[in-house]
Amino acid sequence: MNAAAANIGVVGLAVMGSNLARNLASREGNTVAVYNRSRTKTDELVQAHPEAGFVPAFSYEEFAASLSKPRTAIIMVKAGGPTDAVIDELVKVFEPGDIIVDGGNAYFPDTIRREKAVRDTGINFVGAGISGGEEGALLGPSIMPGGSDESWTTLGPILKSIAAVAEGEPCVTHIGHNGAGHFVKMVHNGIEYADMQLIAEAYDLIRRGTGKTPAEIADIFAEWNKGELESYLIEITAEVLRQIDAETGKPLVDVILDQAGAKGTGAWTVQTALSLGVPVSGIAEATFARSLSSHPEQRAVASILPGPGTDFAVDDADAFIEDVRQALFASKIIAYSQGFDEIRAGAAEYDWTIDLGAVSKIWRGGCIIRAQFLNRIADAYAEQPELPVLATSPYFADALTRGQAAWRRVVIAATQAGIPSPAFSSSLAYYDGIRADRLPAALVQGQRDFFGAHTYKRIDKEGTFHTLWSGDRTEIEAEDTH
Amino acid sequence: MNAAAANIGVVGLAVMGSNLARNLASREGNTVAVYNRSRTKTDELVQAHPEAGFVPAFSYEEFAASLSKPRTAIIMVKAGGPTDAVIDELVKVFEPGDIIVDGGNAYFPDTIRREKAVRDTGINFVGAGISGGEEGALLGPSIMPGGSDESWTTLGPILKSIAAVAEGEPCVTHIGHNGAGHFVKMVHNGIEYADMQLIAEAYDLIRRGTGKTPAEIADIFAEWNKGELESYLIEITAEVLRQIDAETGKPLVDVILDQAGAKGTGAWTVQTALSLGVPVSGIAEATFARSLSSHPEQRAVASILPGPGTDFAVDDADAFIEDVRQALFASKIIAYSQGFDEIRAGAAEYDWTIDLGAVSKIWRGGCIIRAQFLNRIADAYAEQPELPVLATSPYFADALTRGQAAWRRVVIAATQAGIPSPAFSSSLAYYDGIRADRLPAALVQGQRDFFGAHTYKRIDKEGTFHTLWSGDRTEIEAEDTH
Repeated sequence: MNAAAANIGVVGLAVMGSNLARNLASREGNTVAVYNRSRTKTDELVQAHPEAGFVPAFSYEEFAASLSKPRTAIIMVKAGGPTDAVIDELVKVFEPGDIIVDGGNAYFPDTIRREKAVRDTGINFVGAGISGGEEGALLGPSIMPGGSDESWTTLGPILKSIAAVAEGEPCVTHIGHNGAGHFVKMVHNGIEYADMQLIAEAYDLIRRGTGKTPAEIADIFAEWNKGELESYLIEITAEVLRQIDAETGKPLVDVILDQAGAKGTGAWTVQTALSLGVPVSGIAEATFARSLSSHPEQRAVASILPGPGTDFAVDDADAFIEDVRQALFASKIIAYSQGFDEIRAGAAEYDWTIDLGAVSKIWRGGCIIRAQFLNRIADAYAEQPELPVLATSPYFADALTRGQAAWRRVVIAATQAGIPSPAFSSSLAYYDGIRADRLPAALVQGQRDFFGAHTYKRIDKEGTFHTLWSGDRTEIEAEDTH
Repeated sequence: MNAAAANIGVVGLAVMGSNLARNLASREGNTVAVYNRSRTKTDELVQAHPEAGFVPAFSYEEFAASLSKPRTAIIMVKAGGPTDAVIDELVKVFEPGDIIVDGGNAYFPDTIRREKAVRDTGINFVGAGISGGEEGALLGPSIMPGGSDESWTTLGPILKSIAAVAEGEPCVTHIGHNGAGHFVKMVHNGIEYADMQLIAEAYDLIRRGTGKTPAEIADIFAEWNKGELESYLIEITAEVLRQIDAETGKPLVDVILDQAGAKGTGAWTVQTALSLGVPVSGIAEATFARSLSSHPEQRAVASILPGPGTDFAVDDADAFIEDVRQALFASKIIAYSQGFDEIRAGAAEYDWTIDLGAVSKIWRGGCIIRAQFLNRIADAYAEQPELPVLATSPYFADALTRGQAAWRRVVIAATQAGIPSPAFSSSLAYYDGIRADRLPAALVQGQRDFFGAHTYKRIDKEGTFHTLWSGDRTEIEAEDTH
């Protein structure tokens, strides 16, 4: 054991932890202490990667002794109980001023709770969302750390050394205090759900409408990837669609069971948005589309329900494909606008100072939703940091204005043909809702006042009112009970 | 004080509690003890209603002494802390075998927690959802009690005596154990959100498409109320639309601010559904429509976004109105199907035995969503208690088959005209999704496998697979990590 030889430690050496440790060790200036509950993983990692110069530890005491002060350790274990268990151990062997980083997929309220508990001991706690999967952990992830300013002073340079780089800038920024980092990572994943569902709907419509093969549609996506839709998800969609199953000779996408899995971050994003009163309908529809797909027993009985009974074949395939491209871009703008709305509302609720433009920039590399497009979001917030609706910034408003006719044609075609396009259509409904001069919410308020005396406000004067519906139906001023 | 004179007690004498106490006292065989934290409310109630023969108590000890055994008390105080405080006091003065009923709007996980804690003392705890507002509490609500079988023996006859009556049957049934009653009440409210939003969209489309006045549209709703849409909400919609504002002479609905309030049960319903993996898209869109409406600062900036720029006027008003009626009925079927799906999934998750047909029956009276329609739901579950998708029962499948062409025309008209119809369109997308032979969820699985090695299943054989996307792109068998 080399006392105080390492400037950073990693606890938890499963694939993500090992890869992150190797990434850290590969960067100039880092010496990495490693610890794992079962010794085997530590030995294996150290033996497999002598070039990394790892400092192995076989107890928490040894681990702490191997770190220079302020001690800095990144926990890479399962979210929930395992994370709490490691934190408890580290708190015993660390000292005030040291830094514990949770690099797992924690639910942000847990991070808020942990940060508070650890801070009471004088130790810093950082909840860092890390995006990019196993490959990202090894080669450069997008990192979203939340914690104290003090911890960022030590941690910032280390995280910058391992993060992905986009246009010369490392994909990491100090998001905000306590749970801010895991909150932003959660919304990132929610946006990812929407992005993937929108791409899936675009593929489905083109295939059914034009009869093109998956390989031909792969070419379309590859082409799209050269324009404003350029993104990792569009790129890999082309790869997936081009893949041929060796066993059957069919396109792989036709052999894969059409039941989408989920690990819960989409649901968290929507649940949180509901608590915050933010309409993230695109993310919600994407999450629901996955759960709908994964109930085969329900789909089997529902297959008796009839469709429109007409063949779906578009007259002009090229025009339709271009319409779908524009619908996809417009819907994507709405999904991101809703996601950033949730971050804005979350920051207000939890008292975080979050630079929305900086968030969009660190998503340009290392993570699943990386895209050129994020520069346009950064531009929008650079121009107007308090922008209330991202979709209204000049660039996006212009794209929506240009694209809306095509978007409507695509939703209409899908509706006519009986092809489910929940994310396309809900994004458009949101667009038409948020821009509406007047919404039938007034009728809803009237109903609520009728059956529950919930009161209403008027357009022409201040105050809160109630109509005596079961009485003489005059209006009275009332206490505000919403 | 009359020792042990009362067979039922009420704690909390605000409007809901007072009305429920008066309702209880008005029924043959009940003598009602009443208690309130501040004495004034108790005195006022007793003095205002000498005919009720209330047994007032001014301490928890007195309250307990005034009740015959097993003591049975209904708590009607604010959800959250106040409810916990009352429970703590009652537990001190009650004995094993007694029954504490929470008649407030508790979130069902709180009820599960409380039931467990109270049961440990030998006292029964019942979480009872009570729907119907102040008037329902007085004249007959729909009651959804969850708790032990033992408590139901005593409580059943009392609750039956005060519940609304529909077609000769009291609108109360023993829903299931612990949190089952509050769970079902929550979903009831979620369905109510969807029902109201669908009605609002129908009104908006008719008004914009035909230029009819609110009073004329009131006549349409009154007419609809004679057919398959017959329901309390349709009935009161006509009343609200017919109302003229005395001050301006305008329709009241045009004077009410179009920002819908919410008390959180819609959000709870969707949050719970997300945890259960149940796609309740109609309820979600209705909840989001309310939150979207209530952000005036966002709507103000978003009003720059353009619409389709074409006038919306339908050629044949009568035909369009009939289309909207059919779209409303079809969407309503989907909303209820999704809601009952959530109850079914909740029962499985929390180990409740819930009779879905009985639930639909107790909603026929006393509550906000009361409707003839609920008899059809009862029929469906009578015929097939384990029905996986309510919408597939013969009656509803037939209605959807007849209505789907009109439904599509309405969604297309709204899309063309730029009128937001999130609940209509998402219900239709759900319909087309659940009946689809094949969904693009297969592409989503391919993407997930590509970027996260999340694996996939195949349509042609058992097992879990992964393609080595960054390697030679062969397929390997893998551990299931979804």
